[in-house]
Formats: sequence, structure tokens, C-alpha cells
Amino acid sequence: MPQLAYVNGHIVHHAAAMLHVEDRGTQFADAVYEVCAVLNGRILDWQPHLVRLRRNLAELGIVWSMADGPFGLQARRLIAANGHADCIIYIQISRGTARRDHAFPDAAPPNVVMTVRRFDFAQRVRQLDTGIKVVTQPDTRWGRVDIKTTGLLGNVLAKQVAREAGAFEAWLLDGETVREGSSTNAWIVKGGRIITHPTGTHILPGIARDSILRLAGEAQILVEERPFTLAEALAADEAFLSSTTSLLLPVVAIDGEKVGDGRPGPITRRLGELLWAEVARQTGWRA
Amino acid sequence: MPQLAYVNGHIVHHAAAMLHVEDRGTQFADAVYEVCAVLNGRILDWQPHLVRLRRNLAELGIVWSMADGPFGLQARRLIAANGHADCIIYIQISRGTARRDHAFPDAAPPNVVMTVRRFDFAQRVRQLDTGIKVVTQPDTRWGRVDIKTTGLLGNVLAKQVAREAGAFEAWLLDGETVREGSSTNAWIVKGGRIITHPTGTHILPGIARDSILRLAGEAQILVEERPFTLAEALAADEAFLSSTTSLLLPVVAIDGEKVGDGRPGPITRRLGELLWAEVARQTGWRA
Repeated sequence: MPQLAYVNGHIVHHAAAMLHVEDRGTQFADAVYEVCAVLNGRILDWQPHLVRLRRNLAELGIVWSMADGPFGLQARRLIAANGHADCIIYIQISRGTARRDHAFPDAAPPNVVMTVRRFDFAQRVRQLDTGIKVVTQPDTRWGRVDIKTTGLLGNVLAKQVAREAGAFEAWLLDGETVREGSSTNAWIVKGGRIITHPTGTHILPGIARDSILRLAGEAQILVEERPFTLAEALAADEAFLSSTTSLLLPVVAIDGEKVGDGRPGPITRRLGELLWAEVARQTGWRA
Repeated sequence: MPQLAYVNGHIVHHAAAMLHVEDRGTQFADAVYEVCAVLNGRILDWQPHLVRLRRNLAELGIVWSMADGPFGLQARRLIAANGHADCIIYIQISRGTARRDHAFPDAAPPNVVMTVRRFDFAQRVRQLDTGIKVVTQPDTRWGRVDIKTTGLLGNVLAKQVAREAGAFEAWLLDGETVREGSSTNAWIVKGGRIITHPTGTHILPGIARDSILRLAGEAQILVEERPFTLAEALAADEAFLSSTTSLLLPVVAIDGEKVGDGRPGPITRRLGELLWAEVARQTGWRA
């Protein structure tokens, strides 16, 4: 079955999924995106992703006329056409194609693109046992990282440093403060409490982050939403990260220093189990 | 004559100038660009633009194998094919097309795009007499604005505020410090000296900026390359901005406050004349 993509209402072969070079996403990073996990053919947390997408479009003043129902149908149609039970769907909406000028064009309809690719979620379940390593990098990103835009070069450069260091992720430091990872939210556990940076303009409000906060609350695990420092992270009992495609992964080393005893900790494991139970509840997926 | 563009070695109709949706410029702002002025069919300051382009590619680790000579020929061929004596050429080079992953792909050749459009340089000469207005906006951009990347959303949002306020440009403030405009460098004149922000990671090192610094030196106009504040700008005798497509334009109002007597000042005019004389020297163009 060939890989298929969606471009402005049409399902096309992936290789033929093109945007004009004057797409504003391409020339100005004037575009927002979402990545959703699809397990057992079902989109995880579709509604929160859609809410975030619309909020981000509104923040940038991008007017998009498609209603939730038809858009959901288009996304599901693309997923079905690709035929993968387990996959991720990438959704990008730019301000449209227009003659290059920084200011907003008068009347360009948004360019809407979706791509799908297979994804091995079972690997994420296995990584709950092994954990992953992170390194730290300065946070060079712009002032509105709460908006999920395609202006990701700071994230890219940090992730590349992590990759070259043999780490899974780079945690981004603003001075001594850990904001988040280059494509994940950052968490530590100390004295039985989980700690993560509050929302605002310094982090992307992750959908998995929201789920974990809710699940922790239901499990009566204490939560502090506050900035934490690298020193706190290094002295933490446990650490983990979260995102749509990482779900929840234990962080067992930061910059080559062990976190706790260097193995996934009990609260991290418990939260991971709760998150996967939520995945099973929504999608029926089991490892 | 139809509008033509260049995509990866091919000259195509502008409407058919497309990039794959997984171009890294499109998905990550993982791309650099240049805009050059073409007057009388001749590219202004081609060599400095090329040097900056290669420096920016090197900063991002984008490997591009085309040599200067062949690339210059391609650019000139596209300009000639479009048939405009006076135009601007936009050049964009991304890290290439690759399956979406923040870290660098293993072996994706860069995507090279060029577009050309007519440009009315005579308007810029006329604006030397009238001047333009600027407003101020917070500088929300990332930490490496010295690299000319397509991650321009902060610039876009500031420019849009300026446009809606009836101003030509937004000057970007980091605290009280004026860094530069959203697509131009910022200058003030006080007590016979011209003052502009030094290069480094906070401004884009403009090619027109370089020319003006050189011309000022040759004319024995004193120059201070140092940060200046909004208060200094409001108390300045004169102000102006510079860029490839603005050349040099007098700033006669900042946030609705007159600069000096609200008209283009003598040092600004003198520098403008020197810059246009340099344009004439390189290209033979005259208003």
C-alpha cells in the first residue's frame, strides 16, 4: 500500500505532497502543527489536540474555516487510507501561499497538510524498563514557545546535540531553570512529589503532560507545577519526560550523571502504567 | 513573459515552484535565505550576500556542494529569464527533504529555491524625501538572529503590528534596547555621530548596514557601533533604517513621536545619497 498524504482537501501519494515555495510556513515559519498518536486505528486525545490547534491558529490570527467534524473525518480518512493500525499523524496549517511580505497577506486560504507514518509504540513500552538519557542545552528559542509553530530550529539544533551525544533528548536551560525538552516536557520526582514547569510562554503545553497531571491527581500523587533547576534535577529521586510520541519515558541520566540509582523509579513507573492504561482505555491498544 | 522560479537546478513556472511537505525548511524552519537587489539587471553586493549565505549554512551544518561560479550563473540565468531590469531575487536553501525527525537527516541534499519579482527602487529614492514611521515591539525572536533563517514568525508578528499602525517597520526592543527592525537594521544620529547596534547574536548583520558603515567612514562621519535605547532614539537628532530592499530610509517618527523636527535630517540624507551613488557605481542604475 503506497504512503499517502493530505494536501488542501486532496489525498495524494506522499511523494507528490507539495507546497508552493511561497507557502508562508516555508518562508516565515508562519504555520502551526500537531502530531497525534494513532493506536489500533484510533487517534489518541484527538479533541485536546484539536483545541490546541485552534488556540494556536487564533494566537497567530490564522483564519481556518473548516469545522471540527469534517476535519476529523479528513484525518481519519487519511489514516485509514494508509492502512497502519499504529501510526502518527502530522498536521500542519500555514497562513497560506502569498507573495513574500512579512506582514499578513490579505486573502490567502491556509495550507493544510497531513502526513501519516507507521510508529512502533511497543518500543515506548519497552523503554519504560530501560529509560533514556538526556543532555542539557541552552534554550535559544523564541518568546512564544507555547504556540506550536514550525519555527523549530532551536529545538532541532538542541536535539542534534543530544543525538550526537548518544542521548534521546536535550533539556533546555534558561539560566539554571529547566524549561522542557526539545520536543518533550520535563519532569522530576522528589520526596514523592512530581514537579514540572508551569504552562505560560516558556513551555509547550503538552497533551501527554495534561494527561499525566490528571492521572497523577486521580492517583493522589502530589504535583507541583513550578520551574525547577538543573541542580534540583540532578538531585532528584526520579525524572521523566513526556510527549505524544514518547508517551512517558524515564530519564535515567542527565549530562552523564545518574538520576537516583540510574534506573526508572517507582513513581515514574506507576505514572507510565497509568498513562498506558489510559491509552488502552481510549484505543483498546495493548503492548 | 511568465514569472519563473528556480527549484533544485530547474527553471520552472512560478506557479509550479513546489517543495515537498517534508522539506525541512517547511517543517522546522531549518533553512537560510538571502534577498538581493537587482538594478539594471545587475545584482547589488552579490559577493557579500554569498559570503553571508555560506557562513549561515556553515553555522547550521548544512552541506551544500554548489560552487560560487555555477550558483551565480544560475541566479543570473533566472533573473534574465524573468526579464525585469529592476527586481529582487529571493534565495532559500534548506537542509533538504527527509522523514520528519528533529535531528539532522543522514543524507538529504539541500533544497535550493530562487524566486524573482519586479521591484520599484525609485519609490525608495522618493522615500528619502518623505521618510517613514516606525513603531516599537518586544523582540520575541530566538537567540541566533544573526543567522538569516526562515524562522521569521516573531518578525512577521511585529511587522504586522507596524502595518496595522500605519507604520513601515517595527523596531524590536529587548528591554529598553533597540536591537533592529523586523527586517531592517536600525540607526540613530546624535551630535553628528551615527549609532547602530553592534553585530553579534542580537542582530542580523545587514549587507546595506556594512555598506553604510564603510561609506560613513570614507565620508569621515563618526560611527559608534553600540546598543542604544528607545529613549536615546526618541531624543536623537535623526534616525534611519537600512536593508537590501529598503536601502536607506529616514525614520521621521517612532511610536507616533517625531524624531528631530519630523523630517529627514542632513546626515541621513547625505548617507542616503552616498548609498545610492554606490548603487549607481555597481549597477549603473539611476532614479
